Amino acid sequence: MRTLYHHPLSASSRKVRVALGEKRVEFDLALEKPWERREDFLMLNPAGEVPVLVEDDGVVVVGHGPICEYLEEGFPITLLGPDQVTRAETRRLAAWFDEKFAREVTDLLVGEKMLKRLAGQGTPHAQAIRAGLANIHYHLDYIAWLAERRTWLAGDDLTLADISAAAHLSCLDYLGDVPWDDHPEAKNWYARIKSRPSFRPVLGDHIPGASPPAHYADLDF
Amino acid sequence: MRTLYHHPLSASSRKVRVALGEKRVEFDLALEKPWERREDFLMLNPAGEVPVLVEDDGVVVVGHGPICEYLEEGFPITLLGPDQVTRAETRRLAAWFDEKFAREVTDLLVGEKMLKRLAGQGTPHAQAIRAGLANIHYHLDYIAWLAERRTWLAGDDLTLADISAAAHLSCLDYLGDVPWDDHPEAKNWYARIKSRPSFRPVLGDHIPGASPPAHYADLDF
Repeated sequence: MRTLYHHPLSASSRKVRVALGEKRVEFDLALEKPWERREDFLMLNPAGEVPVLVEDDGVVVVGHGPICEYLEEGFPITLLGPDQVTRAETRRLAAWFDEKFAREVTDLLVGEKMLKRLAGQGTPHAQAIRAGLANIHYHLDYIAWLAERRTWLAGDDLTLADISAAAHLSCLDYLGDVPWDDHPEAKNWYARIKSRPSFRPVLGDHIPGASPPAHYADLDF
Repeated sequence: MRTLYHHPLSASSRKVRVALGEKRVEFDLALEKPWERREDFLMLNPAGEVPVLVEDDGVVVVGHGPICEYLEEGFPITLLGPDQVTRAETRRLAAWFDEKFAREVTDLLVGEKMLKRLAGQGTPHAQAIRAGLANIHYHLDYIAWLAERRTWLAGDDLTLADISAAAHLSCLDYLGDVPWDDHPEAKNWYARIKSRPSFRPVLGDHIPGASPPAHYADLDF
């Protein structure tokens, strides 16, 4: 069976897990703590980052972007969209969350509050956390703006744009850091993706010593 | 004619310019200073970042990743490689430079020394510059390691892996910050890509008030 090396607080790992689920591609999960810099893992990915997908025949696919494009090329059910223009819009929005949202929100909250502690890399930076909590509103507004105009973020169908956004938000939601009540439209969109079977394993994640809030796995939150 | 909004010190913009050149896709350049947050540009890309490609029919493609995948889908001459496994390796290495190298080197040197000044965002951070100058060696070693084992970074053909790496290095070379003499193998690889016609426009870049060193445009540097 193909194996995905992942970490439950890595949004990029969650993105790939949900994408694999949506494409009905079976896989085993292997927990990797990237900060341990395990030698066998560095042989798979010298950058030392999750996610990494290893096929039965030994093919190694590294990184959420390459893995998702690899899955798109090799398996049915598109997660990018039917035509070149929609696919460009999907990739734009996926990059928005994978890069901009990651930098402005996820890294500042999940990174400072959880990953630093897990990796033993010092204490959280209060100013970074404040910035992350302030920045998230703008992004939730953008999700609402898109969701009011389209069925899903990039158009008529669920795509990697939704999956990237939901992967990041689900990590933050595990920390209780998403102000859903201030953003009902974004909450409605998230409730839709949260209820998909592909999302269930993500909602079952549990990090020892850091339980999620009660609403985390609740589909009717 | 399609138009690429770019900035000469944006490695992502350079990547797309060289990719367009390698694919023999004609385009006009439009200089954009992203820090001015020009309203008409924010209409094209609410993230306010270059590069952005605008087609004659009004289609807008945002970001180096989406633009390169869009070009791959729409035009002949592959820049990813012939098969799924090579394409995954190309995308892994392109992401290495677009993300890891950008974070560990380009942002610390081009960002601190040039973009901050151009954008009027304060003085360079000496510690960041020292880190960037230290980090670059490891990446040049990695380029040498790959170039000793393969014709080009991802395999037999020139791909986006080479183009991403060279785009970043060319920005740093404009500042005179690449220690080529310490890394002859990486220098040989760079000399090969530097001599391609697609690279010539990049070597002709000139930022007012910041001339490049003499070797910058010299193919026999």
